[in-house]
Amino acid sequence: MTVYNVDGELVDRKEATVSVDDRGFRYGDGAFETCRAYGGTVFLWGKHRERLEQTCETLGMREAVPGDLRARIDETLAANDLAEAYVRVSVTRGVQPGKLTPDEDVDPTVVVYVKPLPAGGTDGEAVWDDPATVESVATRRIPDSALPADAKTQNYLNGILARLELRESERGADESLMCDLDGYVAEGATSNLFFVDDGTLMTPEAGSILPGITRGTVLELADWIDVPSETGRYTVGDVRRAEEAFLTNTTWEIRPIARLDGAAVGGGPVTDRLRRAYDETVDRRCYGDTDGSGNEGRDGDGQNL
Amino acid sequence: MTVYNVDGELVDRKEATVSVDDRGFRYGDGAFETCRAYGGTVFLWGKHRERLEQTCETLGMREAVPGDLRARIDETLAANDLAEAYVRVSVTRGVQPGKLTPDEDVDPTVVVYVKPLPAGGTDGEAVWDDPATVESVATRRIPDSALPADAKTQNYLNGILARLELRESERGADESLMCDLDGYVAEGATSNLFFVDDGTLMTPEAGSILPGITRGTVLELADWIDVPSETGRYTVGDVRRAEEAFLTNTTWEIRPIARLDGAAVGGGPVTDRLRRAYDETVDRRCYGDTDGSGNEGRDGDGQNL
Repeated sequence: MTVYNVDGELVDRKEATVSVDDRGFRYGDGAFETCRAYGGTVFLWGKHRERLEQTCETLGMREAVPGDLRARIDETLAANDLAEAYVRVSVTRGVQPGKLTPDEDVDPTVVVYVKPLPAGGTDGEAVWDDPATVESVATRRIPDSALPADAKTQNYLNGILARLELRESERGADESLMCDLDGYVAEGATSNLFFVDDGTLMTPEAGSILPGITRGTVLELADWIDVPSETGRYTVGDVRRAEEAFLTNTTWEIRPIARLDGAAVGGGPVTDRLRRAYDETVDRRCYGDTDGSGNEGRDGDGQNL
Repeated sequence: MTVYNVDGELVDRKEATVSVDDRGFRYGDGAFETCRAYGGTVFLWGKHRERLEQTCETLGMREAVPGDLRARIDETLAANDLAEAYVRVSVTRGVQPGKLTPDEDVDPTVVVYVKPLPAGGTDGEAVWDDPATVESVATRRIPDSALPADAKTQNYLNGILARLELRESERGADESLMCDLDGYVAEGATSNLFFVDDGTLMTPEAGSILPGITRGTVLELADWIDVPSETGRYTVGDVRRAEEAFLTNTTWEIRPIARLDGAAVGGGPVTDRLRRAYDETVDRRCYGDTDGSGNEGRDGDGQNL
């Protein structure tokens, strides 16, 4: 039996419900985060909490994130006897009088979802079976002027439509690559994109992407292991011709791209070095692997790796 | 006590719930329609049903709209002893395995919401107390290439963000006017826009608007009562300088715009004639007011007025 946490109460997943009048259901009027727990510690929780608060601020409900959210997550993991887990947190505007304009007085609905994942770190294993097969799609990434790009909201149809296009593909792709309105590559439906050109790590610049927390970590790690990196505007062709390419998100971590639109790309030495550095960071922060850095992990709330 | 209909069952509104795993809640992954019942008849139900099916088709769940949906609405109205009512229908992709890519096998969640409204038609009264006060906002209407503009989905944050901007306004506006990415007026958060220039009725063309059913009705009525009309691309200035301007949606019907960005606009003779024609159509189709047209109403399923 899996147990979720709904508004502070542990509930059997099958009994975990919200009102049909919840604005999360009626309008997708809510924020969320997908986190990952390694050895019982939510990796980079401080950054996830910060972004959740920012999204809620964008949605005009600055105070909606409960102060004890981390405790609710820990309690939910414990109730499920889970140390290695996917953790999703949803914060919606809850039930309000039936008009579109939000009321300033918010009684949010807060749900913590968990499910088991393999362990991570250097002794762990990837959650994916294979590198990603990616197709560029016609669906364009929603521009920042319509929905702030850095808000992680429950309005997720843009990515769902991008994924639905894969039904037409005969190549069995598992991620869609969306471009912005100008035709430059933006991001996957649930992932950020990186590629390597002449030894330099490249990734689409902020503005028409959700700048993922894993993306930020990878850029920091590149700096630490002396891989030059740049952000900018790139075409699908740039990625197809790259030496290496990979996707990032909290669950996948760093996932090489086997093929883009049928063209072989694959991982390589830069991808491998970054994956190693990522695993070591997880070891250090979550599995208590003291390596002389003085950072013994398990606090999970610091903003530095 | 108000009763909703959830998946075919009548349920006390306070007990009407969906799973937190419903994709409608997690992603806003669903379609909806707002309808209006006059004298127990859902006005233009055939058109609403058709658009609901089209939206579901866009979302890759063509078969999700139940065959007996009209009967569920009628049953819900009867259970609430309501003849004059707001009726909302939501169809979401329901619960599926926890990944973003939709499963082809859909067990949709279908909710019918109702609430009382005043009667309509020539003997009725407007649901709004005053003409609309409108502000043009910075939030841009999501482009068709990112989310098909003619799909009416539960991803409604674009309109909600547009409404949130009104919090900054000191003029107490009740509707936001969004422009498209090129800066031309598109639509309100929950309404379509019309204005009158030199006796001609103007409304933004399809492409970056949800072409509302009330909008379509108004364009047909204009034709019938010999008001010339055109669709095109217009600026906020065009509307501010208009002779008359109004908003349309299913609930408001035709609602004059008192002020746009502080400038007085107001209704006028064309607006009044269209409102009269609209009321007469409601009389004819829903209140059984036979006027020699041979259309005695109450079928509600025809595609013509």
